[in-house]
Amino acid sequence: MDKLLTHTIEKYKPIIIDWLDKLIPGEEVAPTTIHKAMRYSVFNGGKRIRPIMAIKVFQWASGEGDIIFPPACAIEMIHTYSLIHDDLPAMDNDTIRRNKPTCHRVFGEAIAILAGDALCALAFEILAKSGNIEIIQEVARAIGTDGLVGGQVVDIEMEGKDIDERTVEFIHSRKTSALFVASARVGAILAGADEKMSKAITNYAQNVGLAFQIIDDILDTLGDQKKLGKDIGSDLELDKATYPKAVGMKKAKEIAKDLIKKAKNSLPKDRENRFFHSLADYIIGRTH
Amino acid sequence: MDKLLTHTIEKYKPIIIDWLDKLIPGEEVAPTTIHKAMRYSVFNGGKRIRPIMAIKVFQWASGEGDIIFPPACAIEMIHTYSLIHDDLPAMDNDTIRRNKPTCHRVFGEAIAILAGDALCALAFEILAKSGNIEIIQEVARAIGTDGLVGGQVVDIEMEGKDIDERTVEFIHSRKTSALFVASARVGAILAGADEKMSKAITNYAQNVGLAFQIIDDILDTLGDQKKLGKDIGSDLELDKATYPKAVGMKKAKEIAKDLIKKAKNSLPKDRENRFFHSLADYIIGRTH
Repeated sequence: MDKLLTHTIEKYKPIIIDWLDKLIPGEEVAPTTIHKAMRYSVFNGGKRIRPIMAIKVFQWASGEGDIIFPPACAIEMIHTYSLIHDDLPAMDNDTIRRNKPTCHRVFGEAIAILAGDALCALAFEILAKSGNIEIIQEVARAIGTDGLVGGQVVDIEMEGKDIDERTVEFIHSRKTSALFVASARVGAILAGADEKMSKAITNYAQNVGLAFQIIDDILDTLGDQKKLGKDIGSDLELDKATYPKAVGMKKAKEIAKDLIKKAKNSLPKDRENRFFHSLADYIIGRTH
Repeated sequence: MDKLLTHTIEKYKPIIIDWLDKLIPGEEVAPTTIHKAMRYSVFNGGKRIRPIMAIKVFQWASGEGDIIFPPACAIEMIHTYSLIHDDLPAMDNDTIRRNKPTCHRVFGEAIAILAGDALCALAFEILAKSGNIEIIQEVARAIGTDGLVGGQVVDIEMEGKDIDERTVEFIHSRKTSALFVASARVGAILAGADEKMSKAITNYAQNVGLAFQIIDDILDTLGDQKKLGKDIGSDLELDKATYPKAVGMKKAKEIAKDLIKKAKNSLPKDRENRFFHSLADYIIGRTH
């Protein structure tokens, strides 16, 4: 991770955490169990890439002030909600996430399902408070059957089956890229970005999101469990649809590199894009 | 059920079903499994009381045109989503709903969880398309930890425990009334109802919703499984927090009657309230 990216993450992570803390009811608020479960999963040391993406796009498109923070946090809640549900025994049956037991292992399946549901509801409440209808549509579309849910469905259905590159792209572009794209677009919309900038940053996020998931696939095979903070080898165990499975490890890496190049090239030349270049380089180079 | 109510339901049910059919992607749209599961649960012969409530309040408050139908259907999707998740093995473990196997029994747990998630996402997409921020806030609030999810959490936590009337009211007002209230308020908001009318119909819906759930509790003990179309006796089996358990059967009936009286009395005298009186009478008198 280069200095600019480290600096940006170090700067915005605590701000995002403060906002999340303000936005999610405290552990002492009844019914306490559900707020504890929501907080357990949200405050679990995530990288906060999605909200940072929203914030940085907002600033890149000349947005000013604090209005980006609550919607950015709403997206992080949506991301957490999707992780909680994906980890469930009925889905990927993951036991560790960010080096801690997954939500359902601590609070039980029922509360984990409900904690996900509640984070989703709270996210929309926060998005609605922003007063901007367009960002609600962006996020809702990103998590439905042509987004997160659709990707997860095909992911589950393809377990143990032969898959080709097109299928795994279908899955990953919905499971991961869709929320990356929504993060970027929410930032662009709230900053009042023009059509050209919106399109550019959408392409960037789509490519970077897909590359992110390919690297995730690769790390699940080759990565260090402790550094990653989650079960590794679970893709292989469940015989999941991954890029390495579809096209082999070498080709998977090439595709990821190519996507990163495409992502960078989609940014307009007349703007300051250093942060987005750093983020792209980090994604291709990450080891956890 | 009196003639006016029967007539209204017979008139609007097919219209609602048509709208739902237009709003939910077809079974042939990829990924097909998830759209099949969503449709299986939505087109399962429900009474559609919530969307009808939204539509009738809209008209009662002098709303005109078709703009109420998509949001009313979004609320029905939210209702279906909550039933799918409540029925899951980790929650109430119900096997029959509207005389058919529950979603997870047909499609498996993973797809059932995702079908609920997808209906929720689609509902917000539809609500956002209406262009009205306020109704999104209403619905989001109604399904979060101070609404549906909060009620369900305490419901689960209280299984097998001693409960008092206050606790069961906490549960039912969130598990059931909250979405009744949101239905009514969405109708009022979209019709541009004034403060006085909004308040009146909110009180009506709150009381009617609570009475509805008390009668549900009673029917779970005394009702006819075939007519009800779902497992009966499951509350007793799980030793659920119900009004009959908290205060006894006789008192439970009295409380429900009292709520119905309150509901009727909360309506302004200077408006045509016949439909709402009929609905209240039906709720207290229903046998399934």
